[in-house]
Amino acid sequence: MKAIVYNGPFDVSVKNVPDAKIERATDALIRITTTNICGSDLHMYEGRTSFEQGRIFGHENLGEVIEVGNGVERIKVGDRVCMPFNVGCGFCENCERGLTGFCLTANPGSAGAAYGFAEMGPWDGGQAELLRVPFADFNCLVLPEDAFDKEEDYVMLSDIFPTGWHATELAGLRAGESVAIYGAGPVGLMAAHSAVIKGASQVFVIDTHSDRLALAEKLGATPVNAAGDEAVQKILELTDGRGTDCGCECVGYQCCNKHGHEDNSATMNSLVASTKATGGIGVVGVFVPQDPGAKSSLAQEGKMPFDFGSFWFKGQSIRTGQANVKAYNRQLARLIHQGKASPGQIVSHRLSLAEAPEGYSNFDKRAPGWTKVILKP
Amino acid sequence: MKAIVYNGPFDVSVKNVPDAKIERATDALIRITTTNICGSDLHMYEGRTSFEQGRIFGHENLGEVIEVGNGVERIKVGDRVCMPFNVGCGFCENCERGLTGFCLTANPGSAGAAYGFAEMGPWDGGQAELLRVPFADFNCLVLPEDAFDKEEDYVMLSDIFPTGWHATELAGLRAGESVAIYGAGPVGLMAAHSAVIKGASQVFVIDTHSDRLALAEKLGATPVNAAGDEAVQKILELTDGRGTDCGCECVGYQCCNKHGHEDNSATMNSLVASTKATGGIGVVGVFVPQDPGAKSSLAQEGKMPFDFGSFWFKGQSIRTGQANVKAYNRQLARLIHQGKASPGQIVSHRLSLAEAPEGYSNFDKRAPGWTKVILKP
Amino acid sequence: MKAIVYNGPFDVSVKNVPDAKIERATDALIRITTTNICGSDLHMYEGRTSFEQGRIFGHENLGEVIEVGNGVERIKVGDRVCMPFNVGCGFCENCERGLTGFCLTANPGSAGAAYGFAEMGPWDGGQAELLRVPFADFNCLVLPEDAFDKEEDYVMLSDIFPTGWHATELAGLRAGESVAIYGAGPVGLMAAHSAVIKGASQVFVIDTHSDRLALAEKLGATPVNAAGDEAVQKILELTDGRGTDCGCECVGYQCCNKHGHEDNSATMNSLVASTKATGGIGVVGVFVPQDPGAKSSLAQEGKMPFDFGSFWFKGQSIRTGQANVKAYNRQLARLIHQGKASPGQIVSHRLSLAEAPEGYSNFDKRAPGWTKVILKP
Amino acid sequence: MKAIVYNGPFDVSVKNVPDAKIERATDALIRITTTNICGSDLHMYEGRTSFEQGRIFGHENLGEVIEVGNGVERIKVGDRVCMPFNVGCGFCENCERGLTGFCLTANPGSAGAAYGFAEMGPWDGGQAELLRVPFADFNCLVLPEDAFDKEEDYVMLSDIFPTGWHATELAGLRAGESVAIYGAGPVGLMAAHSAVIKGASQVFVIDTHSDRLALAEKLGATPVNAAGDEAVQKILELTDGRGTDCGCECVGYQCCNKHGHEDNSATMNSLVASTKATGGIGVVGVFVPQDPGAKSSLAQEGKMPFDFGSFWFKGQSIRTGQANVKAYNRQLARLIHQGKASPGQIVSHRLSLAEAPEGYSNFDKRAPGWTKVILKP
Repeated sequence: MKAIVYNGPFDVSVKNVPDAKIERATDALIRITTTNICGSDLHMYEGRTSFEQGRIFGHENLGEVIEVGNGVERIKVGDRVCMPFNVGCGFCENCERGLTGFCLTANPGSAGAAYGFAEMGPWDGGQAELLRVPFADFNCLVLPEDAFDKEEDYVMLSDIFPTGWHATELAGLRAGESVAIYGAGPVGLMAAHSAVIKGASQVFVIDTHSDRLALAEKLGATPVNAAGDEAVQKILELTDGRGTDCGCECVGYQCCNKHGHEDNSATMNSLVASTKATGGIGVVGVFVPQDPGAKSSLAQEGKMPFDFGSFWFKGQSIRTGQANVKAYNRQLARLIHQGKASPGQIVSHRLSLAEAPEGYSNFDKRAPGWTKVILKP
Repeated sequence: MKAIVYNGPFDVSVKNVPDAKIERATDALIRITTTNICGSDLHMYEGRTSFEQGRIFGHENLGEVIEVGNGVERIKVGDRVCMPFNVGCGFCENCERGLTGFCLTANPGSAGAAYGFAEMGPWDGGQAELLRVPFADFNCLVLPEDAFDKEEDYVMLSDIFPTGWHATELAGLRAGESVAIYGAGPVGLMAAHSAVIKGASQVFVIDTHSDRLALAEKLGATPVNAAGDEAVQKILELTDGRGTDCGCECVGYQCCNKHGHEDNSATMNSLVASTKATGGIGVVGVFVPQDPGAKSSLAQEGKMPFDFGSFWFKGQSIRTGQANVKAYNRQLARLIHQGKASPGQIVSHRLSLAEAPEGYSNFDKRAPGWTKVILKP
Repeated sequence: MKAIVYNGPFDVSVKNVPDAKIERATDALIRITTTNICGSDLHMYEGRTSFEQGRIFGHENLGEVIEVGNGVERIKVGDRVCMPFNVGCGFCENCERGLTGFCLTANPGSAGAAYGFAEMGPWDGGQAELLRVPFADFNCLVLPEDAFDKEEDYVMLSDIFPTGWHATELAGLRAGESVAIYGAGPVGLMAAHSAVIKGASQVFVIDTHSDRLALAEKLGATPVNAAGDEAVQKILELTDGRGTDCGCECVGYQCCNKHGHEDNSATMNSLVASTKATGGIGVVGVFVPQDPGAKSSLAQEGKMPFDFGSFWFKGQSIRTGQANVKAYNRQLARLIHQGKASPGQIVSHRLSLAEAPEGYSNFDKRAPGWTKVILKP
Repeated sequence: MKAIVYNGPFDVSVKNVPDAKIERATDALIRITTTNICGSDLHMYEGRTSFEQGRIFGHENLGEVIEVGNGVERIKVGDRVCMPFNVGCGFCENCERGLTGFCLTANPGSAGAAYGFAEMGPWDGGQAELLRVPFADFNCLVLPEDAFDKEEDYVMLSDIFPTGWHATELAGLRAGESVAIYGAGPVGLMAAHSAVIKGASQVFVIDTHSDRLALAEKLGATPVNAAGDEAVQKILELTDGRGTDCGCECVGYQCCNKHGHEDNSATMNSLVASTKATGGIGVVGVFVPQDPGAKSSLAQEGKMPFDFGSFWFKGQSIRTGQANVKAYNRQLARLIHQGKASPGQIVSHRLSLAEAPEGYSNFDKRAPGWTKVILKP
C-alpha cells in the first residue's frame, strides 16, 4: 500500500510499504478515506522528536471497515468509522476511568499511545491506504448516515475538535464565562469553536497570524493580534481589568515570543497574567520532557522558567495533557449531526497522498492560508 | 492592649498598642484566648516579605466575643469563636462561590485578605489581647459546648487543619487512593491527618526532620526520610513503580534541597516525578510573586525552573492557593466534636505572649521538638 | 406607597400601604422600576397555598437604590440593582455553600426565604413602589451601564432565567447532550433558552399550548405538542429510541393530564419514561408538602404515585428545588451584557400597577398570548 | 459441573449441568473458589421476579482463571480474579463513561447485565464449579498476592462492598458529614463500613434486627433500632434537629413497615424526613418496574406513594441504581490490601454447594445470625 513515510527532518515521501493487516483477534482493518496533517506531526517532521525514520505518519483518520478479527463484536465490515488519535485498550486502570489518552496497555512502560507518533507506541499511522486498528470495538467511532456528506467535519473528531474541546474542559470553562485562547492554529480554532458552542460570554483568541485570527473571528471569537505582555494588556482591557475566567494553551513548547525566538514559557506566563485569580488554565499544546534541539539549557531538559509565584498567589490551577478523545467524540458527533458544530470549516487544503510532501512543507512554514490540510488516499 | 509586634527581621516583641475596637457596624470584638504561631509567620519574621515594621502578627485566632456592631445579626456576645485566617466579605464574586481565600473586598486591588499578613490587607493580627473581626457574621465560626475542653483542637480550624485538608482537596485525593505529602511541618502533618481521616490507602510524608516524621507516623502515615531524587525513588518503590495517585506540596518557596540550599522547584519537580500520570498535585505551601532575598535571579522574580515537559506529558494537574477556610471549618469542627479528628495533638509548646519572641526564634530554627507553638494571651 | 395586595383567592388589588423603609443596618431601600408576575404567584393567587390576605406580592424585582443602612458597604445609592427572588443572609451554612435558596436565617425554622411568598418568611413583595431588601450587600446584583436599555432582560435575572438555567444544571445537562423540557411556561422557555445557549444538541419542549410552543421554537427548541404517553412516544422517536440524555420538570404540582385533570405525577412519570437510563432529571416546577385543595388524598398529603421502580431500574437521578439565583446571576448578566442571551424576548405584556389585577386574571387563565407580564410601578 | 439451580419459589438445589466453557474469543473460564448468596438473590428465590426455572444463581464470584480465548490480552491462566456482578462490554456509551452497571451490549434492549439475575441478560451464575466470563479483559479484577489469605474480603468486591460504597457516593457523602443508612443487611453494613472509612462524622444505621445492628456498631456506626416515624425522630434528635447531611437506602421494594407489612415507600419517605434540606439520598436497594406479587395496586405497577412535595420543598436529590462495580473495585482492593478495609468480617456462614439450599432458606428467613453466607464450590 502507499503511505507517507518519514525520512528525516523536513523530509517525507510517499512510499510503497507492506499492507496493514489484521494481527490480533480484536483488530479491525480500515480503508482510509480522509486523514489529516496535524500540527503535532510538525514537531516530528522538523526532527524535534525521537520519531524513527521509516515510520508512517498520521493520527487523524477516518475510513471504512473492510475486515475485523474474530474477537470483534460491535464493529462491522462496511461501517464508516473515525478513530481517536489515542490508541486505548479499554480495560486498563486509566481507560476504564475514561482517561484513554493515558492507556497503560497500548504503550507498555508509558501512559498513552497513538498512531504514527513519537514515544507513543509501535502503531503505524494512517496517512496511508490502510490502517490496522487494535482493540477495534473500543477504538472506532461508528458514524451516522450523513458520514459521507460531512466527512470533513467528522474527521475532525479524530483529534483537533476533541482536543480543542478538551482545552476548554481542562480550563474549567462554564457557560457565561470568559476565556482566552492562546494560539489560532487548528487546535486553538477548535477551542474557540468549542467555547462559543458552550455559551462562553467572551472568547478571545491570541495569535500573530492575521489569516488565522480572521478564522477565529468567523467562528465568533474576538481576535487579539499581539504577543507577550501586549496580549496580556489587551485582554485585561477587554475584561475591565478582571482578566478572563479561564484560559487555554494551544501552542506548545515551540512557542515563539514577539521577537520570533522560541520561548517555551511565553504562553504559560502570559496565561497566568491574563487569567483572574482562582481561574483555571487548560493546556493541550504539546510540551516534552526532553528537547535536545532547544537553545536554552532549561528547555533542553523540558523545563521552563515558570511564574509559579504569581500562579500560586492567584490560586490558579493548571490541567494538562493529550485529549481523551473518547470522552467527547460521541457528543461532538451529535453536535455535527444536528448541525450545531462544523469543525470542517477550517479546512484550507484537500490533497492526494502524492501531494502530501508539499502539504507538510507549506503547513510547517505557516504559509498564509494553509490552516488545515486533509489528505484523500 | 499587649500585642506581638514585628520590629524587623528576626525581631518581634510584646508591646502596648491601642486597643482593638469596633469600627464598623458589621464588626465584632474578640478577646483572644488562644492564638498560634504559623509557619507562614516565619516568612515575615525572617524579613522575606514586605510586612511592615510595627504591625501585629497572628492569623490563627480563637476567643470570646465581647462586643458586636449594630449590623451583626448572628454572632452574640459570649460566643466562643474561631476565625478563619482569611478575611472575607461574604458578598463578592469569590466569597459567594466559597472562594473566601480570594475575597475581592477585604484587600482592594488584590484577591485575598488575612489578619496580620504581608500583602493581605490592613487587618491587625490576633497575637494580642483583642482582635477586631470585620464582617463578623461571615468570619466567625461559633464553637460548640466543648469549646473549652478542646480549645487546642478547635484553634487549628483557623488555618493549619483546613489548610492541610485543602491540600488533599486540591490534590483530588479520594478514599482508597495513595498520596505523597512533601513537608512534615504543621501543615504537612495536618494534610496527613486529613488524608488518613478521608480513607487514603497509603499516606507518605516526606521530610528530613526525624522528629516531625515521628509525628507523621503517629498520625498513621508512612514517613519517608529523604529529599529530591532519593525521595522520589523511595515513593516509586513503595507504590510498585506506579507513583502515588496524587501529591501535596506543604513546604513552599523556601524549600531546601538535600544540600541545604534553597531551591524553590525542589518539591514541585519531585512531585511531578513521584505522582502517577493523570495524577493531581495540590499546593498549599506559600510561593510568592517576588522574592528579592532569593539567591537565584529566577527565584527573585518568583519563577522556578519547572519540569513542565514531564508534567504535561504525564497529563497531571496542579491546583493551588491559600485555603478557603470557610469551605471546611464547619465539617472539620464536627469531626473534632465527634472525636474523629484531633489536630491539637501536634502542639508542642504553650507560651504566654511574653514568651512569644522565644517561641518565634525556636520555631524559626526548626529547633528539635518545636513543632507547633500556641500562645495564651 | 402603592402595592399589589392579596385579598383572597383570585382577588388582588392595588392598595395604599405604609412605605417600605430601612429597618436594620444591613438593609437597602429600592425604588422598583420593573417587577414581574410569576407563575408561582398564581399558586398563591388561586388560594392553593397558605399565603395570608393583606400581603404584598412580587419576588421578581428590579430598581434603583435610594437608601442604605450604615452596615451596607458595597451597595450605593443610585445603583441599579436586580434582586434574586430568594432572600439569603450570606453567612449560614447553606448560603456560604452557595445554596442561597435554602437560607437558614431569613426564614427561621425552615430553609429558604423569598419576597412576597407563602411559607417563605415575612418579607414583603416588590409589586409596589418601594422594596426593603435585607442583607443588601448580599442580595443586590448591581447592573452594568446598559441596565436601562436592557431592563426587560435584566429583570429576568430575579427568577425565571436563573430558574430555567437551574433546571438544566439540576438535570446535569452538558454541551452536546439532548434534553426534554416539560412545560412551555416562562420557566420552561427559559430552560430552553439556557439549554440552547449551553450547546445542547437537541432541546425538546413539551406542552399543549401552541402559542407557547411557538415561542419555544423561536428560541431554537423543537416543540412537542402532546401530553403523557404520547409525549413520551414522540421524544423516543425523535431520539432513535434512546430517550433524552436528561430532562427538566418546569410545570409543578398543578400539572394537568391530557384530560385536563390535575395529576401531580404526570410530568415526573413521563420524565422517567422519556429519559435514558442513567439520565438526570432536574425539577424546578413547584411541588408542595401539603395541598389541601387537591382532589386525590395522596396529593393532599403532598404525595404522588411515582414510578420509582422504573426510575431505580434505569439508574436515574432527580435533583430538585428552588434556584439558588446567586449561583448564576452574575454569569447570566454577562451573557445579557454581551448580547448572548435575551430572556426578555418572551415578555408579552407591560402593565402599570393599576392594570395588575387584569394581568393576574389573564395570566392565570393562560389566556392566549399572555406569556409573561411585567409591571412598571 | 455442579451448580445451584432455581426450581421455583423457595426451591433451589444442586444439580449437574453442562460445563461452562469458552464461547467467544474474548471469554475467560473461571474455576470458582468462593461465591456468595446475595440479598438480591432472595427476590428471585421467593419468586418475586421473572427469573426462569432451571437457571443458575450467583453473581458474587471469585476464582482462578483456567482458560482464556484468543482475543484476551491481559488476563492469564492462573490469575486469581474477582468478577463484578455486572457484565460489561467496555466499549458501549455507558461502559466507556464508567457506568458499567448499565451496559448497552451485554443485555440487548435494556441497560445493565449480571450473572444469574432476572432481567439482566442470558449469563449463567457462578454458584457452580465453573463460570464463563465474557469480555474477560474488562470483567476480571486481578487480585494481588494476598488473594488467598484475604479471599473472604476480596470476594466482597464482586458486589456488596462496592454496592455499599456506591450508596455513599450516590448520597454525595463527604468526609466530615453525617449519614443515615436504612437497612443493616449486608449492603447496609457495607455502606456503614464505607462511610466510616471515608471519614463521616456520624454514621447511623437503622433496622429492626438487633443482631445486624450489633454488627453495625462493631463497624463503628451508631445503631438505631426503630422504623418509620420513630426512626426519623431518633435521627433528628441525634443531629440536634438538623437531620443528617445525606442518607442511603439499602433495603429495597420489599421493605416492611413497623407492622411487618410490605410498604415500598417506607424507607424513601423516612429518608426525605430525616435528611436535611439540600441533602442527597443514594438508593441501592432494589426497586422493580413491575411487582405482580405485591398487595397494593400501586406497588404492582412498580409505583410508590412518594412524598415528592417535601422532597422538592427541601431541595433534596436522589441518585439511584445498581453499583458500577468497576468504578470502585480497584481502590477498594487497595484498601483491603493495605489493611484499611475488611468487608469479610460480616461473613457468618461458610457452606459447601451441597449446603446451599439450607443457606438460602435460613438467609431468606433472616434467621438470627445469618448475616452473610459464602459458598465454597
